Amino acid sequence: MRRNICLVISYDGTDYFGFQSQPGGNTVQDKLEEAVRILTGEPHHMLGAGRTDAGVHARGMFVNFHTDSTIPIDRWAVALNTRLPEDIVVHSAREMPDEFNARRHAVRKTYRYAINCCKFPDPFRRRFEFHHPTPLNVGAMQAGLQHLIGEHDFTSFTSPLSTKPHHVRTVYEARLESVALPDDIPTLLEERDRIRFPGKTRGLFHLYVSGNGFLYNMVRIIAGTILQVGEGKRQPDDMAAILAARSRAKAGPTAMAHGLTLWKIEYDEKYTC
Amino acid sequence: MRRNICLVISYDGTDYFGFQSQPGGNTVQDKLEEAVRILTGEPHHMLGAGRTDAGVHARGMFVNFHTDSTIPIDRWAVALNTRLPEDIVVHSAREMPDEFNARRHAVRKTYRYAINCCKFPDPFRRRFEFHHPTPLNVGAMQAGLQHLIGEHDFTSFTSPLSTKPHHVRTVYEARLESVALPDDIPTLLEERDRIRFPGKTRGLFHLYVSGNGFLYNMVRIIAGTILQVGEGKRQPDDMAAILAARSRAKAGPTAMAHGLTLWKIEYDEKYTC
Repeated sequence: MRRNICLVISYDGTDYFGFQSQPGGNTVQDKLEEAVRILTGEPHHMLGAGRTDAGVHARGMFVNFHTDSTIPIDRWAVALNTRLPEDIVVHSAREMPDEFNARRHAVRKTYRYAINCCKFPDPFRRRFEFHHPTPLNVGAMQAGLQHLIGEHDFTSFTSPLSTKPHHVRTVYEARLESVALPDDIPTLLEERDRIRFPGKTRGLFHLYVSGNGFLYNMVRIIAGTILQVGEGKRQPDDMAAILAARSRAKAGPTAMAHGLTLWKIEYDEKYTC
Repeated sequence: MRRNICLVISYDGTDYFGFQSQPGGNTVQDKLEEAVRILTGEPHHMLGAGRTDAGVHARGMFVNFHTDSTIPIDRWAVALNTRLPEDIVVHSAREMPDEFNARRHAVRKTYRYAINCCKFPDPFRRRFEFHHPTPLNVGAMQAGLQHLIGEHDFTSFTSPLSTKPHHVRTVYEARLESVALPDDIPTLLEERDRIRFPGKTRGLFHLYVSGNGFLYNMVRIIAGTILQVGEGKRQPDDMAAILAARSRAKAGPTAMAHGLTLWKIEYDEKYTC
């Protein structure tokens, strides 16, 4: 009896060449497929809800695969975790209708890009946040992000290597959230900063971008461009002009992979438990 | 002109054999002294406010050293960070009165022991928290910790390898704090848990212990013992009997090093900036 099993997984992507299998190996998918093969004794092909690049993390990645295994559903997560390296964790396993496809049925994905603009990096979070050594104009970044919300052609915000025929996507949300930090360690704004960087703020900021789909490098290019707005190199309204130009050359650099986490994936009600 | 420089540092202790220099090398102190030697061209002996064991972390460690270097005080942190591995970060440098001694003048230290009793470990925090795979009776743990507050002989809560002549210390605070976790990833209490583990809770808990001084392994033995209270293997009031026994054999196991972080050190007003 063929079953369709859906896993929710988290991984620290630091030491992997991304999620999806590739000839060089050492991807998250390879590790998952290997764990399932050891557990069931048979090879299985796994389908991830999305790709993540080398060094990108995932908090709530969904994958599904079909199997004839009769292992009870509530044993899968424990059994796989004992067979996975400690930087990949299966949180849950659920049996889904046969047609369920983790990639095709996702209706909303959210990525988080973490920006630490305290004076020095944090040794505990360094694998998961990008360190920007000078303060940023957070208000300008927030204003710039508003231009991305809605249905747009995101050609300017994707790699020229994108293989997708269409670049129109809908961004539901693009917001920069300030994360509270304990104030007893001197990582925040110093007096000298106020003079050197007027109107700019130090701190930890999480950029959340939610949409119906994302193009190759899209969130990292959004992050790299909005950082330039925060630095004062671009104005918030430039974001509209960049979108309209439909040219990768108009946007900012691709922000470093390690700040990015695939945060959350949402499905149609019929596939939600 | 001899100066007394005090640094506040954080480190991820995962890959070090503790803070304090030892013949085998690869300690945090070795890395700091090496960075100062490269920067100033001369060897310096550094004094840490406390030792941390192999694998233990520090968020707010204080160290001081005397130097004839004329490097301006506001350049030290930046200059050292460029010469340190990325798991050690200097947050600030200050010039202190000549007699200041980071160890002797500390009046209060706080350690944090992080306990994750969600069903599975978190791949992003795994280096800094102990994973306890079953839920815990948090109320019992909180009640048990109350017995530690005040001046006590902590012989039961130190390693027999302690070289200290006296084991009387004052604990100012010992509390277990529940840390809010996002509820959209299924890491928390499941229905089945409620039946299997009545009265117990899943989640992330931070045990903070503050005192005027700590003995070798003291916080880790407190954590290991209070975990047994949380498991129901001991009662909260057993903590009083364990203290009274003045015997290491009466307490629980030494909890794993990686859950422990030297959180905060406080000094007399005259040494506080």
